[in-house]
Amino acid sequence: MKRDLPLTLNQEALHNGQQRSVIRELFDYGQIKAKEIGAENIFDFSIGNPSIPPPPEVQAAFLTLLQDRDPTKLHGYTSSAGDISVRQTIADSLNRRYGTHYAGENIFMTCGAAAALTSAFRALVEEGANNEFIVQAPYFPEYKPYIEGQQGNFLVVPACPPDFGLDLDEIEKSISPDTRAIVINSPNNPSGKLYSEEELQNLAYLLRLKSQEYRRPIFIVSDEPYRELVYDGKEAPHIPAIYEYTIMTYSYSKSLSIPGDRIGYALVPPNFEGHDLVFAAIAGAARGMGYVCAPSLLQHMIGLTVDVKTDTKTYDKNRQMLYKGLREIGYEVLRPEGAFYLFMKVPGGDAPAFSNFLRDEYNVLAVPSDSFGCEGYMRVSYCVATKTIENGLERFEKAFKNWPG
Amino acid sequence: MKRDLPLTLNQEALHNGQQRSVIRELFDYGQIKAKEIGAENIFDFSIGNPSIPPPPEVQAAFLTLLQDRDPTKLHGYTSSAGDISVRQTIADSLNRRYGTHYAGENIFMTCGAAAALTSAFRALVEEGANNEFIVQAPYFPEYKPYIEGQQGNFLVVPACPPDFGLDLDEIEKSISPDTRAIVINSPNNPSGKLYSEEELQNLAYLLRLKSQEYRRPIFIVSDEPYRELVYDGKEAPHIPAIYEYTIMTYSYSKSLSIPGDRIGYALVPPNFEGHDLVFAAIAGAARGMGYVCAPSLLQHMIGLTVDVKTDTKTYDKNRQMLYKGLREIGYEVLRPEGAFYLFMKVPGGDAPAFSNFLRDEYNVLAVPSDSFGCEGYMRVSYCVATKTIENGLERFEKAFKNWPG
Repeated sequence: MKRDLPLTLNQEALHNGQQRSVIRELFDYGQIKAKEIGAENIFDFSIGNPSIPPPPEVQAAFLTLLQDRDPTKLHGYTSSAGDISVRQTIADSLNRRYGTHYAGENIFMTCGAAAALTSAFRALVEEGANNEFIVQAPYFPEYKPYIEGQQGNFLVVPACPPDFGLDLDEIEKSISPDTRAIVINSPNNPSGKLYSEEELQNLAYLLRLKSQEYRRPIFIVSDEPYRELVYDGKEAPHIPAIYEYTIMTYSYSKSLSIPGDRIGYALVPPNFEGHDLVFAAIAGAARGMGYVCAPSLLQHMIGLTVDVKTDTKTYDKNRQMLYKGLREIGYEVLRPEGAFYLFMKVPGGDAPAFSNFLRDEYNVLAVPSDSFGCEGYMRVSYCVATKTIENGLERFEKAFKNWPG
Repeated sequence: MKRDLPLTLNQEALHNGQQRSVIRELFDYGQIKAKEIGAENIFDFSIGNPSIPPPPEVQAAFLTLLQDRDPTKLHGYTSSAGDISVRQTIADSLNRRYGTHYAGENIFMTCGAAAALTSAFRALVEEGANNEFIVQAPYFPEYKPYIEGQQGNFLVVPACPPDFGLDLDEIEKSISPDTRAIVINSPNNPSGKLYSEEELQNLAYLLRLKSQEYRRPIFIVSDEPYRELVYDGKEAPHIPAIYEYTIMTYSYSKSLSIPGDRIGYALVPPNFEGHDLVFAAIAGAARGMGYVCAPSLLQHMIGLTVDVKTDTKTYDKNRQMLYKGLREIGYEVLRPEGAFYLFMKVPGGDAPAFSNFLRDEYNVLAVPSDSFGCEGYMRVSYCVATKTIENGLERFEKAFKNWPG
């Protein structure tokens, strides 16, 4: 038989499967180049992977579970929302910390924050309507396929340099009766910005006004994978305590250094009428995507490590060294308040060109801000070996002096 | 502020999140009743969970990984398609068994078969077109939300009693230019039917004719979670060797008794032009749903246990006892060839009524076939303790004698 029949596949999926991100390309470049000239001669600031191993409690929890628990239950299906005792453990932990009154029933466990996000987006997409989700630049680039994959429209509000705070005027202009939610990511990837309680209160005020005007709630989808990575004694404000129509998505990827294991949750706080319907819609959305339950072994591990945090001291040390070093060289740098990224202004303003220059002349890899929806900056990750920063700063200095752009 | 704004959520997601399946209701009923009258007095044949713990090699693999591997890599992100060495290990295993020539690059690792299915369905859905997926009853009920969740149309071909083989006449009638794929699940949940090589060859012949007629490939999506649970010395035919346009989805849930852990894969065999595009579209579909990568700890575990199989002897013993026992009572029973389900004709034909009678009079739980898209049968699971069958058969006998229906 002839096997040359024309194929017509889903174009969005094909595009998302074929498109290579700049971040991934830089990473692959680094891997190949490291084989040529030695890993010690590559200064890779492009990645967003925890550089610190999981806290010892994670290993201990896995061993305890594997040795002590009934394996049929440990590896068995949980309910689609997750094991209720683990969910209650998470709710209790949040309640201790924020003085809230969440129940296990408000927690929907997921395969990482990404699954929580796509399920939340789908839950909010009204069939047959135009459904807009507002994201302010700079933003985590996967929000675009996550929102569009759920038939939502990805609407970008421009970045607000030099501080990269919330631009309430622009957000207000972008809100319409089609607005379903605004995605907030604080501490922010890539800027390292932590939104203050005050600016979040102002956002809440605006969203309440607009929700009343359009007689339909505009949600905050608060994506908080970096919540535990905040420095200088600060703490990320608890957004559901500020704005009632919040869906919080969380991942243990960064706080426990287990990004590949895929475990997190969506919290639908019982702060508004119909929260149980939103929860049900998230559950149904996850079901339709084939999320049967979050990995059970991982769920149970979280049940034993709920209050464990990664060693932020190393990240903090890296942060201060990189921030100080780059400023002393002469770079304009946003002071990073959280996550493990530093946002740096590119001399001359052409970020892709400067990124290529750093790569080709100095074997320094960092991501131009174009990938995050704004121009003229670079994301320099400090989830790297401290030595990489020590040695890399010399390269940044030479690049600063020799850059013709 | 008023918190009584009207909510308009995604209706499909809301429906899928609120709808309670008959299987789940029976299961919950059993749990509650067990507390009242003792678990030993409930005869629960409703569930589809492995009753056998994971083989010891699974536990050993987890411990080896946790003790010997670099934890930053073990729990770190893999590429979105999975760790290439694990994928190659799976390909090698398939090649040894089926004489095929798959590469690791043909394997896309997923959070269980469900994620592989939804990604495959999405990949095949053409934007703006009518996209039909054919499923013959009796079928696993989650196919409906999985297909509809990807904007596909779920098209049912009626069941074909008494043998429940493929009904090629009806399948042919249901094929149109809108047909994207037919979903095959052999061994079948709920019927226990294993399609023969010959009937699969006949299906392939039909699909080739129709694909040529419409100048567009009609795929087989072969869902094979029960592939390793086949009895009487038989083996499930390898469908990609029979039909070129096959996407195979697999889960280790049943073969390793780890259903909650969510690990499986999609195989896109390099048997047709454009297989790499189908692979890319599956990857992009998974990306848009938030499947960042399959859980890395689980991937690496599979790398160490790829040829390990569950103890099918216990299932086989249960199967034979239940089959023989029900037949001796007088029930008409389809001889189960695979999976861990037995399909039984209901005396009088009213399956929901007989299910209720069994439940209310005898504390016996089994699922009426209406849940699987056909009438007049019950699914009796034998992934239960052998004692449950021994004692449950007396109840089935009393029900048979006392059933007024």
